[in-house]
Amino acid sequence: MSTIVTFGEAMIRLSPPGFRRLEQATSLDMTAGGAELNVAVALARLGHDAAWVSRLPDNPLGRLCRNRARELGVNTSHVVWSPSDRMGVYFLEFGAAPRASSVLYDRAASAISRISVGEVDWPAVLDGARWFHTSGITPALSGSASAVTAEAVSAAAASGCTVSYDLNYRARLWTEQRAREVQVPLLEKVNVLFTTEEDTKRVLGITGDGYQQVAEKLVERFGFEAVIITLREDLSVWKNRWSALLYTGGRHYAGPTYEVEIVDRVGAGDSCSAGYMHKVLSGAGPQESVDFGVAYSALKHTIPGDFNLATAEEAERLLSGGGLRIAR
Amino acid sequence: MSTIVTFGEAMIRLSPPGFRRLEQATSLDMTAGGAELNVAVALARLGHDAAWVSRLPDNPLGRLCRNRARELGVNTSHVVWSPSDRMGVYFLEFGAAPRASSVLYDRAASAISRISVGEVDWPAVLDGARWFHTSGITPALSGSASAVTAEAVSAAAASGCTVSYDLNYRARLWTEQRAREVQVPLLEKVNVLFTTEEDTKRVLGITGDGYQQVAEKLVERFGFEAVIITLREDLSVWKNRWSALLYTGGRHYAGPTYEVEIVDRVGAGDSCSAGYMHKVLSGAGPQESVDFGVAYSALKHTIPGDFNLATAEEAERLLSGGGLRIAR
Amino acid sequence: MSTIVTFGEAMIRLSPPGFRRLEQATSLDMTAGGAELNVAVALARLGHDAAWVSRLPDNPLGRLCRNRARELGVNTSHVVWSPSDRMGVYFLEFGAAPRASSVLYDRAASAISRISVGEVDWPAVLDGARWFHTSGITPALSGSASAVTAEAVSAAAASGCTVSYDLNYRARLWTEQRAREVQVPLLEKVNVLFTTEEDTKRVLGITGDGYQQVAEKLVERFGFEAVIITLREDLSVWKNRWSALLYTGGRHYAGPTYEVEIVDRVGAGDSCSAGYMHKVLSGAGPQESVDFGVAYSALKHTIPGDFNLATAEEAERLLSGGGLRIAR
Amino acid sequence: MSTIVTFGEAMIRLSPPGFRRLEQATSLDMTAGGAELNVAVALARLGHDAAWVSRLPDNPLGRLCRNRARELGVNTSHVVWSPSDRMGVYFLEFGAAPRASSVLYDRAASAISRISVGEVDWPAVLDGARWFHTSGITPALSGSASAVTAEAVSAAAASGCTVSYDLNYRARLWTEQRAREVQVPLLEKVNVLFTTEEDTKRVLGITGDGYQQVAEKLVERFGFEAVIITLREDLSVWKNRWSALLYTGGRHYAGPTYEVEIVDRVGAGDSCSAGYMHKVLSGAGPQESVDFGVAYSALKHTIPGDFNLATAEEAERLLSGGGLRIAR
Amino acid sequence: MSTIVTFGEAMIRLSPPGFRRLEQATSLDMTAGGAELNVAVALARLGHDAAWVSRLPDNPLGRLCRNRARELGVNTSHVVWSPSDRMGVYFLEFGAAPRASSVLYDRAASAISRISVGEVDWPAVLDGARWFHTSGITPALSGSASAVTAEAVSAAAASGCTVSYDLNYRARLWTEQRAREVQVPLLEKVNVLFTTEEDTKRVLGITGDGYQQVAEKLVERFGFEAVIITLREDLSVWKNRWSALLYTGGRHYAGPTYEVEIVDRVGAGDSCSAGYMHKVLSGAGPQESVDFGVAYSALKHTIPGDFNLATAEEAERLLSGGGLRIAR
Amino acid sequence: MSTIVTFGEAMIRLSPPGFRRLEQATSLDMTAGGAELNVAVALARLGHDAAWVSRLPDNPLGRLCRNRARELGVNTSHVVWSPSDRMGVYFLEFGAAPRASSVLYDRAASAISRISVGEVDWPAVLDGARWFHTSGITPALSGSASAVTAEAVSAAAASGCTVSYDLNYRARLWTEQRAREVQVPLLEKVNVLFTTEEDTKRVLGITGDGYQQVAEKLVERFGFEAVIITLREDLSVWKNRWSALLYTGGRHYAGPTYEVEIVDRVGAGDSCSAGYMHKVLSGAGPQESVDFGVAYSALKHTIPGDFNLATAEEAERLLSGGGLRIAR
Repeated sequence: MSTIVTFGEAMIRLSPPGFRRLEQATSLDMTAGGAELNVAVALARLGHDAAWVSRLPDNPLGRLCRNRARELGVNTSHVVWSPSDRMGVYFLEFGAAPRASSVLYDRAASAISRISVGEVDWPAVLDGARWFHTSGITPALSGSASAVTAEAVSAAAASGCTVSYDLNYRARLWTEQRAREVQVPLLEKVNVLFTTEEDTKRVLGITGDGYQQVAEKLVERFGFEAVIITLREDLSVWKNRWSALLYTGGRHYAGPTYEVEIVDRVGAGDSCSAGYMHKVLSGAGPQESVDFGVAYSALKHTIPGDFNLATAEEAERLLSGGGLRIAR
Repeated sequence: MSTIVTFGEAMIRLSPPGFRRLEQATSLDMTAGGAELNVAVALARLGHDAAWVSRLPDNPLGRLCRNRARELGVNTSHVVWSPSDRMGVYFLEFGAAPRASSVLYDRAASAISRISVGEVDWPAVLDGARWFHTSGITPALSGSASAVTAEAVSAAAASGCTVSYDLNYRARLWTEQRAREVQVPLLEKVNVLFTTEEDTKRVLGITGDGYQQVAEKLVERFGFEAVIITLREDLSVWKNRWSALLYTGGRHYAGPTYEVEIVDRVGAGDSCSAGYMHKVLSGAGPQESVDFGVAYSALKHTIPGDFNLATAEEAERLLSGGGLRIAR
Repeated sequence: MSTIVTFGEAMIRLSPPGFRRLEQATSLDMTAGGAELNVAVALARLGHDAAWVSRLPDNPLGRLCRNRARELGVNTSHVVWSPSDRMGVYFLEFGAAPRASSVLYDRAASAISRISVGEVDWPAVLDGARWFHTSGITPALSGSASAVTAEAVSAAAASGCTVSYDLNYRARLWTEQRAREVQVPLLEKVNVLFTTEEDTKRVLGITGDGYQQVAEKLVERFGFEAVIITLREDLSVWKNRWSALLYTGGRHYAGPTYEVEIVDRVGAGDSCSAGYMHKVLSGAGPQESVDFGVAYSALKHTIPGDFNLATAEEAERLLSGGGLRIAR
Repeated sequence: MSTIVTFGEAMIRLSPPGFRRLEQATSLDMTAGGAELNVAVALARLGHDAAWVSRLPDNPLGRLCRNRARELGVNTSHVVWSPSDRMGVYFLEFGAAPRASSVLYDRAASAISRISVGEVDWPAVLDGARWFHTSGITPALSGSASAVTAEAVSAAAASGCTVSYDLNYRARLWTEQRAREVQVPLLEKVNVLFTTEEDTKRVLGITGDGYQQVAEKLVERFGFEAVIITLREDLSVWKNRWSALLYTGGRHYAGPTYEVEIVDRVGAGDSCSAGYMHKVLSGAGPQESVDFGVAYSALKHTIPGDFNLATAEEAERLLSGGGLRIAR
Repeated sequence: MSTIVTFGEAMIRLSPPGFRRLEQATSLDMTAGGAELNVAVALARLGHDAAWVSRLPDNPLGRLCRNRARELGVNTSHVVWSPSDRMGVYFLEFGAAPRASSVLYDRAASAISRISVGEVDWPAVLDGARWFHTSGITPALSGSASAVTAEAVSAAAASGCTVSYDLNYRARLWTEQRAREVQVPLLEKVNVLFTTEEDTKRVLGITGDGYQQVAEKLVERFGFEAVIITLREDLSVWKNRWSALLYTGGRHYAGPTYEVEIVDRVGAGDSCSAGYMHKVLSGAGPQESVDFGVAYSALKHTIPGDFNLATAEEAERLLSGGGLRIAR
Repeated sequence: MSTIVTFGEAMIRLSPPGFRRLEQATSLDMTAGGAELNVAVALARLGHDAAWVSRLPDNPLGRLCRNRARELGVNTSHVVWSPSDRMGVYFLEFGAAPRASSVLYDRAASAISRISVGEVDWPAVLDGARWFHTSGITPALSGSASAVTAEAVSAAAASGCTVSYDLNYRARLWTEQRAREVQVPLLEKVNVLFTTEEDTKRVLGITGDGYQQVAEKLVERFGFEAVIITLREDLSVWKNRWSALLYTGGRHYAGPTYEVEIVDRVGAGDSCSAGYMHKVLSGAGPQESVDFGVAYSALKHTIPGDFNLATAEEAERLLSGGGLRIAR
């Protein structure tokens, strides 16, 4: 019984060290991650009881993924084990300006893409939960994954959970049109939306005069309780400007802006979502929640891997103006 | 136009360093290899013009595989490029007694498994070739791969090439029965068979009173010009005893026996085949050919990766009784 | 609520790669481990709900240790957190004949050495537990650690748990005399003893004509339900012979003997204990239990780190005579 | 028979990882490279049939160098093998502001410095070639290397090839005066010159009011069909501004300017030359050619090693304004 | 007999590679360093005969530390060896904006903290010395270390040495009040003070209208011959602005300012001190001395580890305006 | 002023990790070493004041070599610095049976090969020395190195030092005949000879009925005070049998025999020499001296690099029968 439940794919992530291209690599660093798992990890790290639901192959790679989630305190007892399917894998090349970092996916036919309705006992999983979170990657994986996402969202809504959703559009998985058809019905049951201006435009066709208007239109259209839009400015590949805006209760709240030196930006958006959820679940107000989400995820950019190994104290210290000197 | 043509799959090989289990690894060493590619590499290294035919995805992993073949001098100009399929991958854990090394395959739906009859212009590829080689892995990959294997073997036989075949039974790819049904017709066109006593028994049901009788029965049944049976005794995981027997022209020829300290035994059988082919193509007699095959492949056990980076000179020196001291 | 509870120290383990001496190292491999944690990890891996109780500093090293336990499924919710103390550290040099591997301890003043009676709510921790395990390292750490060990053993015995104890004599922590004075009272409450012939002699002064007589004398003296003596023959540093003997119910049961190629022997004894406990808890008989303990711990020698990442299936396969070839 | 032929030295390159000084390194990363080989590699990668001519020792280091060229598709069949000489080696330290990266050469008495006139059958090598390229490093290596450079340039000019030349002044190899004496006669036969403002001034004593005037004077003096001047501004060691200017047919063409984050700038100039040659050989106009050269070489700065593992598609995408986000 | 003698602790330094957090590290890079040792190393490297006095445990870690000092030419013959104590250790995490680098100390009960008055024969050690240097870390280690610091400073002053002192306040070792009480008497005997504006304010309560006034007040209060204040501006974690000011003989001398790309800033202040001392000992004037100190320590930021492996020539070249290009 | 003086070349040693062939390596481990330096290092480590004389280039590689000698306590103040020459380099491939380890030398034109008579002030260097040691590698380097060796041996003999010499025949440096011509006159002044049966036969043409007779003939011919013959039996590449025989004062003394697991056997002979010298210099008798030499050098086989990082205590413990268990 966990307070927070997230649902989605995790993949083995393989990346050449030292900015090497994949073609010239002779070794690869291996971690595991995935949008919804990243959220669960961050929430567990921030002190919550967070469960992650997925479907994994019962082989060393599936176990590795489960172990890494468990290492950081995530409840993995609801994972469905497949006797035969494969883990999705992705290859990540770290770039430098003017070469962006890039990803080669090898995720087809993964165990979770073959999940089927009824395999997860959602009412049992959600028993006692206060928040359910998933993202637009999960229904994009396959028809059955899409059906299970709908099943989960419905069960979560029915159980009284806050349902949050990260739009996370992945053009390599589906078309904008298909993403719209599948997700519009889901979004009707969603309470909190995490998104970017670009994804909103591509998937929902919603644009506006500035981020604030986009958020207002989203709330108008779907009745969300809150919309969080993350803002990233690519000053270079190694340096970004990072912030987020929150629109809730008819008011806008701007988070702080940080210049981040980028060690690994994968999972930053997930950290922002988790930081926001952490504060809301702890009873904090909107400004404090978006502030924490931004600060906590700014720290994520400096940490290798998908997971955010920063602590709540570090994020609070950053918000209080802690400097860049070595603390001794 | 190459003297030797081989046909088969190559995979990306990922292995944890330092005898780590896959579950505990944080990095993986990456190489590429595959039975028929290994043979082509060894022959190119031994001074022959060797081409390897395969089907690869046009992505960094496919190019990596092509590059590594090219690095060691293999002609890759006949590779068929697929705009969309994936590379097969396998994960190799190095063991220590009493834990055997082990392999986790993730090769389903690889580009070569989707090759189709007619995609390779075999007469053009084989133009000028003297020897064609493939193995029991290739037809096991898929129905279409099986059909292309048959197409290739027929074209090679028709073109006057010596056709060699390594039985290489892979239980994870097909059943013994299916392996038999598919391969018996192929073997009818084969001139030289490389095999082990165990594979011969499992795939062809042929057993005998000792290796010699097995070889005799194989020749009797299929009319092979030569049969080479490799012999491995697992003294431990880190030390093996290694040799091979040749039966040709109605006579038996035993290669030398080596105690090998094992750095990486993958590809040793392929090295033995290549070493034998090298000598036969150079006009040597049976004893010299099997001797060289054994010595050259004994050296392979000491070299990381699928490929044999020993030189012909090193194998000759080993056969001449070169010692284990550092040469200075 | 866990079925099995273990109690003891875990340390950060730092070891130079590539057989380097500490003096010449420029990097160190880092893992975590400790006798009782190793037992809990193995039991969790074998499918049991195992908790590990300790006292850790609330800093990155303490969290690292907790995380690594959690990664492999151990329940760490009963760990006591100290706001200020340090982690024990040990430096491990891997040897080669005739240089034995060696250890440099830096464990003084560790958080667990400052644990105090009453800090752990043993009745709550042991609620529902069937087995409690600790070793002779824990009471050797400090006076207060010794007192808490006594407290734990008493509570476990009172709660009806099977109490097991590994003698694990550490000459650098205390004298043989002090070890005897402290542990004899503890052993009176112990049901199952894991030991070696040497430790038995040094700590308890019990010797005999062969291992069997030693075991008989131990049972006679302390009334143990079972005594397991592990047997190690150092053929060289890289190759050992490994087995164990069980004496229970008035009968002797010899486990199988394996020649093991040594990647990392630390934790092998703990694995044997855990393998034995696993089978006993699963209702198996004495022979099957000691056989599994030996096979499972033979595999441990081949795996880097204190933890045994072998699976139950691999141990069973070894017992069934699985060979040393690569499975494909 | 290759479309493009380049001629020059390649060296083994050894560099300490992690910005270490050579004095404190315990391991070195090893690659191979050299100005003219880098050009051949880039052209092969861009789809051309490119041959590289050199002289290498017949030992593992010479073979390593040949292999790495072959890996990326370069035709190495015209390499001359020496039974006894050595490979040149250079040690590269990566810097950070205000410490520039630095190079320690150990290239004296390398195999190519002992090449002699007549050792390469230039008419055969150049048969069918459309472009010949070398640089000011080659004649600087030794008197005989200088003579063979002259031999090659003459043969190329005679065969109707476009002859291109990169001035590449190396102060550690020869004086400015000697560089001038040797190269002025060569430049008379050159069609396309790649250079920097600084090298032009030091070697040829040609200066001007701005880059454009320098280019005009060069054309006036030597009758070049085209002059390409690369422009580098060292904002810091880790960030540079990079561009190039082309003067051809009496007109100036400015390439785009990129701020590049520097992983490894060695070989960037060679990449620019190759990118330009690629487009010219493909029939593109001057603006498109210089644009591509600059974009392709901007990408080189982000890739470890001398070789440019970017693809043509990546350079085109950069020219089309592709951003710095991770493509998913 | 050394010209310069420094006194203080050195620690084993362990840091995760690749910007990893300690919690996620599986290996650590190991070096040794400490403020006063760093000064001795730099002076030895700059050509002086420099001795470092400390107390080390006679175990592999103590020897490692001694060896690394010796490697760079420091006279370690006055080190006191302890048969039983431990080395201090610190764990260093490298950060990226907005996460500062951070340090976890594990230095309690180190061998030097247990040094006692009389253990070092200061008159013998200082025989022939011209300069003695220590810092505010040493007396902070323990009461007895504080007493030995006082003993050393007195002996040095008595022997006619220039006595220099780096305030180096470490809040984790003692309070500001305690630091003041202990150090004010020491500073009365000090000739040259190295400090920062912040440390001066915290320890001595001296503030001013700008750095110059602070320096003037320090001289007024303690009668220092010279005060050097280093200035660091944290533009980001990876880029700092670095300079220093010298006040001596009633005049102010500003060193140059450098933008430094940060590989490792630990030990930069020590390098500045050593660079200044080097020039003063060589008879240079104030401006030249502070200039060299700044330039030499600017280079330190680019070098991994506590020690400055730059050469005097490199610092001179930097001062002469040497650029950021690769020298070839 | 050092008790022991050795003279010879040291080289940078580069070796691929993980048993890789040089051709397939992407990184190389770097150490420094050389026969006479190895002896000095071992003696410094065993507590003696040992100086090593050589000629090194004044560049980062020369300094690295000097630093590594200094790290282990060797007096390097007599090294002659060359402003321009190069360091010798050798590439070492680690083998596995049946592939012997192998060496690729790149040592021509090294700084020491250009040393000239008079460059070293031998009387000053040898002032106070009790022992001088060199080996057959030094005179093999060049004519001038040979002349300086003669100069050194004469000076040492004249100064009353014990002169020891390791025959160390290197077939790649000179012929057997030339080795004989040059060394016979040197050997006339030598007191102690270290050799192997094979080198004795090749260089001096001395053979016998067993090692003992060879030693006797050597003494008869040259009047040596002592002859030490090391004995190595290559059981495999990873396991050797190792011992030594001493003939002195008309009696034979056999050292113990060890089966050694080989991490790195380079420098084992030098360690044996140094261990013997250590005991003789400490006043021990012949049996104790040869025993220690063998034990100390047996340990060397287990340590990476040319240098022996074992301690005297470890060698004594081995001689006393210390086992192969981890000491805890």
